[in-house]
Amino acid sequence: MNGHVLALSGGVGGAKLAAGLADVLAPGRLTVAVNTGDDFEHLGLTICPDIDSVLYTMAGLNDRQRGWGMANESWHMMEQLRRLGEEDWFNLGDRDLATHIARTWRLRAGSSLSQVTAHLATSLGIAQQIVPMSDNPVRTQVHTGNGWTDFQRWFVSEQCRPAVSEIRFAGTPGAVISPGLAEALAREDLAAIVICPSNPFLSVDPVLAVDGVREALMNRAVPCIAVSPLIGGRALKGPLSKLLAERDLRRGNIDIAQHYGALVDSIVIDRGDADDAPALREGGHAVTLAETLMRSAADQERLARDVLAAAGVEL
Amino acid sequence: MNGHVLALSGGVGGAKLAAGLADVLAPGRLTVAVNTGDDFEHLGLTICPDIDSVLYTMAGLNDRQRGWGMANESWHMMEQLRRLGEEDWFNLGDRDLATHIARTWRLRAGSSLSQVTAHLATSLGIAQQIVPMSDNPVRTQVHTGNGWTDFQRWFVSEQCRPAVSEIRFAGTPGAVISPGLAEALAREDLAAIVICPSNPFLSVDPVLAVDGVREALMNRAVPCIAVSPLIGGRALKGPLSKLLAERDLRRGNIDIAQHYGALVDSIVIDRGDADDAPALREGGHAVTLAETLMRSAADQERLARDVLAAAGVEL
Repeated sequence: MNGHVLALSGGVGGAKLAAGLADVLAPGRLTVAVNTGDDFEHLGLTICPDIDSVLYTMAGLNDRQRGWGMANESWHMMEQLRRLGEEDWFNLGDRDLATHIARTWRLRAGSSLSQVTAHLATSLGIAQQIVPMSDNPVRTQVHTGNGWTDFQRWFVSEQCRPAVSEIRFAGTPGAVISPGLAEALAREDLAAIVICPSNPFLSVDPVLAVDGVREALMNRAVPCIAVSPLIGGRALKGPLSKLLAERDLRRGNIDIAQHYGALVDSIVIDRGDADDAPALREGGHAVTLAETLMRSAADQERLARDVLAAAGVEL
Repeated sequence: MNGHVLALSGGVGGAKLAAGLADVLAPGRLTVAVNTGDDFEHLGLTICPDIDSVLYTMAGLNDRQRGWGMANESWHMMEQLRRLGEEDWFNLGDRDLATHIARTWRLRAGSSLSQVTAHLATSLGIAQQIVPMSDNPVRTQVHTGNGWTDFQRWFVSEQCRPAVSEIRFAGTPGAVISPGLAEALAREDLAAIVICPSNPFLSVDPVLAVDGVREALMNRAVPCIAVSPLIGGRALKGPLSKLLAERDLRRGNIDIAQHYGALVDSIVIDRGDADDAPALREGGHAVTLAETLMRSAADQERLARDVLAAAGVEL
């Protein structure tokens, strides 16, 4: 089947697979629906970290060393902002700022986040569709010893240190599915749904919390395949390993698969974790072994091909 | 008399003398009231070019080569903004952006322009008071063959090319004098008012158009001294020479002095323009000859001392 592919993505890891899918699928065959639970307002700017990671990675502008933001970045605005005594816990690169400024004024002028995101993608020469999960603000919050904290505060300012007992997505229920995500889910030529190797709790769950998305996935007529964000039982980046440990989930891929349950038919795990395959199959999931570490654009494309093959999508 | 000094200033030229005054007067003895008619909203940011020129020049952060903005500036945000297809007719330096971002979010959070300006000045280590002429928006507009145009559009985008038949200050009458300017005018220890070498039509007239300012200057109990922005009949920078020619005003300092009329007691002109002195004195103005070209901080201080001496202000 050579139809359309819908990918659900969070930030860095997910963005890499999304970029791989974008490169191997013909233009127009991919919709990437992105988590907006990490979005926040900062110094009057509307910042959408996961959308930006997807945009920059798909445009080949991402910084691979740092792991986030744009390559060849400078930090002169931040330097001066610090001098002015403004909040400096969230780093804003000079090049990256153009995205936040363009987005913020376009949203204020009345465009939807979907429209702004489409405009940014087109401007950056991206030939696939990138859509937010919803045009309504959804804000991920974590419950720590200090009560509820906004995600970016905990993630950046507190460097994920406080243990998380609970996660909620303020704005859900009630967040309306974005037109682009709804359209992709309803396509007659939809061939597969791919859950990118993003944090299930913090990056994928917010997408599933948007009104109707979980139901649409449960009622799917096409394969849904998830790529595990774990290699050797650990996440490459971010707080996933810590969250798993705090929840006493110590079975790696098995816990990830169990978290998704009947939402996914199939899971792609790293070749080195082949030992997990029997238990995953017992849990009812098909298993594909692949090289899931993505260090280069070539790695991204290779994994994208393996994922699409496993989902039965023809190129 | 060693009291307080009030300076009225526009952008670059005025800012230099303001910085000189700030350096030679003991901290707290100077209030600089700045033109805000050039302010505008751009890409969601509130930009106050003249206040920023005064801030940067008084903080020693101004770029003397370029003549505006900050020294050691980079332009990475602009580069990316252009790539995103956004309006790029107004250059925003990366360092300079910190000021616009800090100002914009503080204004949105409910601070007045006076409060924001005071905060910025303090953050930059400036020990004198910088105040906007008004906390209400005043917007200078010029009438050209194409009707009324916002000042920055004409000044930057159209590079002052269309001839100006009329100038107006939208928001006046009705703009309330800022607390800092009102306070300076009412001080018992006010020793002198200095009109900096700014464009009389575009930088000083807007200040005079704020409710009560012209009247307060007319009723002053202290000397008011203006420094001519012309050397050898020409303005160093900006559209002043062009505006004078369009109005058929070809007498240089004499036209400047006549424009201010009874608002000023005394005028400081460049030593090279000594020939203008008799006519200026005939017109009722005292005349001081000085080196009015300011290439360095030392030049600024020298001129500031000459101006204060001419106004009878003791250091």
